[in-house]
Amino acid sequence: MRIGIFGYGNLGRGVELAARNNADAQLVCVFTRRNPGDVQTQTGIEVRSAAETDAFREKIDVLIVCAGSSGDVTKLTPLLAERFHVADSFDAHARIPAHYRAVDRAALRTGHLALISGGWDPGLFSIARLYASAVMPAGQCRTFWGPGVSQGHSEAIRGIPGVLDARAYTIPDSAALDAFRSGEDVSARRLHRRKCFVAIEEGADASEIERAIKQMPGYFEGCETSVEFVCAEELRAAHSALPHGGLVACRGATGLNGQNRVNIETSLRADSNPEFTGNVLIALARAVYRMSKRGDTGARTVFDVCPADLSPMDPEALRAEYL
Amino acid sequence: MRIGIFGYGNLGRGVELAARNNADAQLVCVFTRRNPGDVQTQTGIEVRSAAETDAFREKIDVLIVCAGSSGDVTKLTPLLAERFHVADSFDAHARIPAHYRAVDRAALRTGHLALISGGWDPGLFSIARLYASAVMPAGQCRTFWGPGVSQGHSEAIRGIPGVLDARAYTIPDSAALDAFRSGEDVSARRLHRRKCFVAIEEGADASEIERAIKQMPGYFEGCETSVEFVCAEELRAAHSALPHGGLVACRGATGLNGQNRVNIETSLRADSNPEFTGNVLIALARAVYRMSKRGDTGARTVFDVCPADLSPMDPEALRAEYL
Repeated sequence: MRIGIFGYGNLGRGVELAARNNADAQLVCVFTRRNPGDVQTQTGIEVRSAAETDAFREKIDVLIVCAGSSGDVTKLTPLLAERFHVADSFDAHARIPAHYRAVDRAALRTGHLALISGGWDPGLFSIARLYASAVMPAGQCRTFWGPGVSQGHSEAIRGIPGVLDARAYTIPDSAALDAFRSGEDVSARRLHRRKCFVAIEEGADASEIERAIKQMPGYFEGCETSVEFVCAEELRAAHSALPHGGLVACRGATGLNGQNRVNIETSLRADSNPEFTGNVLIALARAVYRMSKRGDTGARTVFDVCPADLSPMDPEALRAEYL
Repeated sequence: MRIGIFGYGNLGRGVELAARNNADAQLVCVFTRRNPGDVQTQTGIEVRSAAETDAFREKIDVLIVCAGSSGDVTKLTPLLAERFHVADSFDAHARIPAHYRAVDRAALRTGHLALISGGWDPGLFSIARLYASAVMPAGQCRTFWGPGVSQGHSEAIRGIPGVLDARAYTIPDSAALDAFRSGEDVSARRLHRRKCFVAIEEGADASEIERAIKQMPGYFEGCETSVEFVCAEELRAAHSALPHGGLVACRGATGLNGQNRVNIETSLRADSNPEFTGNVLIALARAVYRMSKRGDTGARTVFDVCPADLSPMDPEALRAEYL
């Protein structure tokens, strides 16, 4: 399958490296909205201007959209789905239904297939939640994110006047996890705490900034949050990696009186969030490629992809090795 | 969907209870090869003789085959797949490819759909291995079973002359798990140890029986095994539950030089193995029902089932709640 990458930030770079590890994936080129001459890829892959994308319609089987969810992926994916089979990693959970409808319309119009919201959450963790809920009808799931860098929360802090740079870590609360496992009710607010490292301008009011962070609605408000001020150099030196991960914890019961407990958990720990997400997107691109060959069109999510379609192995080998 | 159960042992009883928890499942009846009058179901479901099965072809949408893998499920499923859409939980990993071919032939002959080897392993754990291998092409997976009762190993001990009853527990080796997580090579023999509780006939040679257990090829040989002799009453009293579970541990790497580690793990703990397996089989029966309505025929495994087909929720609700 011939793969194109649209957008060359952290995620685009992750997909580039992931493509190298899959013998059936051939990376054709990277499209950027910056000046292509200014962009240097990690593996020497050709860089083209986004304006040239259309010229590659016959040369690319699946185009992976690597723009961030905070950016314009909700505009980009429908646009590109009119020209290519695509996969994106749109991760703003609340806005997924609207994004799905927009992409579905665009893709159906021109007979393309578009997988949205691929990655690990949404993505692998969504699948873990769905499987658990299907086999434990009266069960509950809680998703614990971290320990890892939340890029959305880091961005939000950077938007505060006086802030030079920031890194926000999400840390799962192990007491809340233990409580959930043992059957207690656990409120969503107790699942995580946040640890922020912030570099500020000289003369900026640190206590005012700390207050602004801790009260930010939709991000830190109501959540246990610590703020540590460091200099910009230390922030770069000690906090430039992008690890992430988490745990989907699910519990249920079986038996005539629900007396027998069941716990199913799926955990992930990745030193590089964008590189691992890139790996998931390549596997999903493989499924898009196969499903499009079978004539599938419109929008899809990980829920609509058979596990077998993600693997480079043929079905018989899969049954022999992994079943 | 109208469900039938063929075979009423531990697993059949588990499916019976699972069906109650799924509003879209209606349990029609249980078929037994014993005298139906001697069989009392837990929930008052009607019991029929296996000889009557054919008469229910129009009354059952999916028949769940609940015979054990050590028994004749390899004969039963092909036979029943000529008359019904079916699901079974055949779990002898090495013999799955042959079973698949036999069931596929039978089901295709009469236009039925047959899901084989459903449950948690093979089943949910197989899916975990497949997803992990698809997103970590150069990664490795190890499956740790237990702590829990291995019914196959318990059976094997019961076959030794002089043994009245036995229960064999599989216990995962936590040191081996830690070693695997940290990147070391771990041999398959190190993953588990076995703990056996055995009741023997009066006058039987305990040390001879212990030797026979520990040297049993394909079961205990080469594995750290402890044997404890108890009286039959104690065995029944303290070891009648059938808990099981395990962990699929997978590791891989990302990055230009593979410098960034990834760990993905899926764990299960179920107080009642057959009841939980019953729950999985009901979810799979739902998928069989839907796929058969779409005209699918032949054999399938969990690898061929889209996650969405397992859930009673409609696709839009699934995207909104679980994605």
